[in-house]
Amino acid sequence: MELGVIGLGRMGQIVVDRVCSAGHDVVAFDVDEAAVERAEATGASGADSLAAMTDQLGAEKRIWLMVPAGDPVDAALDELEPSLDTHDIVVDGGNSHFEDSVRRADGTEAAYLDCGTSGGPAGAELGFSLMVGGPAWAYEELEPVFDAVATGPQGHDRMGESGAGHYVKMVHNGVEYALMQAYGEGFELLQEGRYDLDLESVAKTWNNGAVIRSWLLELCEEAFREEGGDLGDVADHVAGGSTGTWTVQEALEQGVPLPLIYQSLAERFASRNDRFSRRLVNRLRYGFGRHEVRRT
Amino acid sequence: MELGVIGLGRMGQIVVDRVCSAGHDVVAFDVDEAAVERAEATGASGADSLAAMTDQLGAEKRIWLMVPAGDPVDAALDELEPSLDTHDIVVDGGNSHFEDSVRRADGTEAAYLDCGTSGGPAGAELGFSLMVGGPAWAYEELEPVFDAVATGPQGHDRMGESGAGHYVKMVHNGVEYALMQAYGEGFELLQEGRYDLDLESVAKTWNNGAVIRSWLLELCEEAFREEGGDLGDVADHVAGGSTGTWTVQEALEQGVPLPLIYQSLAERFASRNDRFSRRLVNRLRYGFGRHEVRRT
Amino acid sequence: MELGVIGLGRMGQIVVDRVCSAGHDVVAFDVDEAAVERAEATGASGADSLAAMTDQLGAEKRIWLMVPAGDPVDAALDELEPSLDTHDIVVDGGNSHFEDSVRRADGTEAAYLDCGTSGGPAGAELGFSLMVGGPAWAYEELEPVFDAVATGPQGHDRMGESGAGHYVKMVHNGVEYALMQAYGEGFELLQEGRYDLDLESVAKTWNNGAVIRSWLLELCEEAFREEGGDLGDVADHVAGGSTGTWTVQEALEQGVPLPLIYQSLAERFASRNDRFSRRLVNRLRYGFGRHEVRRT
Amino acid sequence: MELGVIGLGRMGQIVVDRVCSAGHDVVAFDVDEAAVERAEATGASGADSLAAMTDQLGAEKRIWLMVPAGDPVDAALDELEPSLDTHDIVVDGGNSHFEDSVRRADGTEAAYLDCGTSGGPAGAELGFSLMVGGPAWAYEELEPVFDAVATGPQGHDRMGESGAGHYVKMVHNGVEYALMQAYGEGFELLQEGRYDLDLESVAKTWNNGAVIRSWLLELCEEAFREEGGDLGDVADHVAGGSTGTWTVQEALEQGVPLPLIYQSLAERFASRNDRFSRRLVNRLRYGFGRHEVRRT
Repeated sequence: MELGVIGLGRMGQIVVDRVCSAGHDVVAFDVDEAAVERAEATGASGADSLAAMTDQLGAEKRIWLMVPAGDPVDAALDELEPSLDTHDIVVDGGNSHFEDSVRRADGTEAAYLDCGTSGGPAGAELGFSLMVGGPAWAYEELEPVFDAVATGPQGHDRMGESGAGHYVKMVHNGVEYALMQAYGEGFELLQEGRYDLDLESVAKTWNNGAVIRSWLLELCEEAFREEGGDLGDVADHVAGGSTGTWTVQEALEQGVPLPLIYQSLAERFASRNDRFSRRLVNRLRYGFGRHEVRRT
Repeated sequence: MELGVIGLGRMGQIVVDRVCSAGHDVVAFDVDEAAVERAEATGASGADSLAAMTDQLGAEKRIWLMVPAGDPVDAALDELEPSLDTHDIVVDGGNSHFEDSVRRADGTEAAYLDCGTSGGPAGAELGFSLMVGGPAWAYEELEPVFDAVATGPQGHDRMGESGAGHYVKMVHNGVEYALMQAYGEGFELLQEGRYDLDLESVAKTWNNGAVIRSWLLELCEEAFREEGGDLGDVADHVAGGSTGTWTVQEALEQGVPLPLIYQSLAERFASRNDRFSRRLVNRLRYGFGRHEVRRT
Repeated sequence: MELGVIGLGRMGQIVVDRVCSAGHDVVAFDVDEAAVERAEATGASGADSLAAMTDQLGAEKRIWLMVPAGDPVDAALDELEPSLDTHDIVVDGGNSHFEDSVRRADGTEAAYLDCGTSGGPAGAELGFSLMVGGPAWAYEELEPVFDAVATGPQGHDRMGESGAGHYVKMVHNGVEYALMQAYGEGFELLQEGRYDLDLESVAKTWNNGAVIRSWLLELCEEAFREEGGDLGDVADHVAGGSTGTWTVQEALEQGVPLPLIYQSLAERFASRNDRFSRRLVNRLRYGFGRHEVRRT
Repeated sequence: MELGVIGLGRMGQIVVDRVCSAGHDVVAFDVDEAAVERAEATGASGADSLAAMTDQLGAEKRIWLMVPAGDPVDAALDELEPSLDTHDIVVDGGNSHFEDSVRRADGTEAAYLDCGTSGGPAGAELGFSLMVGGPAWAYEELEPVFDAVATGPQGHDRMGESGAGHYVKMVHNGVEYALMQAYGEGFELLQEGRYDLDLESVAKTWNNGAVIRSWLLELCEEAFREEGGDLGDVADHVAGGSTGTWTVQEALEQGVPLPLIYQSLAERFASRNDRFSRRLVNRLRYGFGRHEVRRT
């Protein structure tokens, strides 16, 4: 299969790598020429403009957008639209709001797949979890690509109609906030509590057989190993919050109570000093997402 | 090594099986003769009384208690005490409160290890996570047994002095409550939300590569597979709560805020009754606004 | 002063009564003729159409809208607009969203005052608390009317530019949710706790000198007196929630944490349904611990 | 009636003043001689020792303890006990834990009344709200004194058996935490939100007719008037927390969920920087209790 990839940042480059490694052809474009060169170095065919990319893809285009959520998605779609027809498929693999995805699906000639992508840069080797919304035929057509980008056939599924993929990803992120904060609370109590504990040892022991073992807990263990059990100079300041905010907003519209997810978001808002739990969350976001760690 | 095991319920039997499988000798006792016979069938030597067990163990006794937390632990220790001296080691593998463990460690001649055990009956094959408190020499002496009961050498560690093992296990359970409730909130929003989703597919997709993958999420997937995506007749009623209560109590003493863990416990309480608080709010809305009072 | 009042429901009728009692002239209109007749009985001059009302008011019209928030406000404004010019003043005394009020202020020739009104039907005798947004000259011009509708000159003030009145009222309602739930929690603990208490006596004693005395606590006392200390057949079901939802939505946009107000809203949502989240936790406890699953 | 008052701090002196003003005789004792002299200046008869006080009171002693909760109560009772018999009555008007009160009631010959006292130093003129537990005959016997110390006959009542008074007071304080935090959240949103508001005007307007008017809201108004709408240099640091902690602990034992009260306590624990809501609570505790305001 031939896939056009637009946006060659950290995540886009991983998509290129994994799709090329699976034996597919990739035509890669980014406004940053250096990024295009990197993609070429890993086997993609570089394009120096969107138009060049669509020319190269010919009929029945399959295009994967991996650009920042918001205006960049609309800008790319606007430029692509004249070249698209009903046989084409566009995937948005970013963190778009599901309502934007529904609007974009309605506004394009192509079949439009909204694809929530979880796993972060740390997922480069294992592959991602892909939650896909949109027309069934388009999802099925792209399964070989999803197999390559995901952990394999188990790592992706069609969630439902347009928007369902980004909807499920939005909720995923809300849960993620709460899981991180829950671990943070536990480690805060251990850190402040009445025993002098080695938190890396605690995390390691839990990761081997305990009910609460998880990938995020492995990232806790890594954090304590790399920063020390007291997290060194990691600051009590948690950035981010848009997808968690969307989750709470949607739950308000649905009348669904989400006290833990809300509180996790509220902790971020409140994070302006030395809450150990939030210092841990700050560092965890580096663990899976390579978000910059703010330091004191 | 020769290990006496007292208490042959579901968890005690797993300890017997794993220790026998690792090539150690087990002397097993329970007040239920059928349980003793089951232990014998898996290679243990059965004892028909505590005294018979201690006789069989001879000098340098190593004894694993796997009886329900509370009075049964004290009862077993009272009966054992005359046979114990400073060369002996007693392990409490149950969910005792850490303060009871400190008290018991102070009250026995033997070296006393408090051992938090996580993994549940589902951990029979993989092995458990063991968080151990108490004298270092006793912990080291029992490492071969811990290797066998845990997932292996990575699955156990000495957390610190007496009580530290059950302390860490207590906090583990508090975190466990919050993780379960966090997943619950996410799936609730997906279930009540604007797409018609297959929750088993969501859980499976997340378990393959997503940031929030975990063993508890695998259990969510299993639950949806076995009960259906709407959870069938599973009730809105969550039992249990003692270790979560202890976690919150300890955090109150330490002045550590645990809003997610507290809220998870509060949800359990709330699932068991009508809320008087909400009935009053219902009525107050009539008081100031003449809104209709809904009645049972 | 001559005031036109549109909307003669419970709250509109109180406005008519209080303004007439203060010696002003009222021209009253409602689509319900019986409501107009009631207004006439208390001293207003009835109008049988909006047009008739505006004719009667002549130049420099002062009009008070007391219709349900949402479309009815826009409908009334659309019909009024051709008769309005820059010397006229329109007050929206309902529970409109502040962003709608800003939009309406921008869309009319008249000076537009958004007026949050608190006190409920129970405030008929005491007068209301009025939080007003919009042009200063219009607020000052209408002070005699505000004096009459409010508890007096202390019971109203100009909060700021357009929207500020409904903004402050929105936050007022968020606080109101939390205050009610806070009292509810206290009385729930007293009701479920270890003493057999007379909650009406508790509320009465608190209302006389205690730190937590308030008008809502007087309404609690009234509720226990009228319904009994166990609240009889009052249901665990709290309706309403729109202004609280707006408050939380605005706080999300501002990045302000509101855990108590959020939780109070979540309690309302939770009072209306089984919680899927808790049903999942119920089932998960079987998953790892083989705890019995309670079923409906 | 003749009443002995032990403990002549701020609250004890108010008790002396109000009981003297009502025409009763007071014998006052404190370890601080200056305090005894102040009590004498307002009409009490000073005693220079507990023994001198009990001698003066003769048979059928009525004694009001107004000493700090904890050991000072036990110390005073130990010293009094030899002089007490079954015709005597001792009132503990402080913030004792209800379980201590039950224990003390069981341990004395005298009839023991636990009396929760709300209103703080600010209640000196209005009188307090008194929640009393213990024997009915003793409560009735002391009604004239309660009438004097409380706002009047409506401001006190017998809640039930021993401990019930301090139990109800404990819950009162839990509710108090939540009410303060709820106002704090509302004002935080107004302060951080999109309008430039005069928070003193908001509070004043609300206090005149709004649903959420209360004495605590009057204290908010006072705080903004005295400190400015931005609360000046009032720090984000909330001290105290013992009675709120007791409330949550009791609710844990009763299985009653108290999310708002818990969260209010958690906010105090978390208060180490610039949460506007907590700065307000800091200041409010001065408003009713004259607790020192910590400043930056």
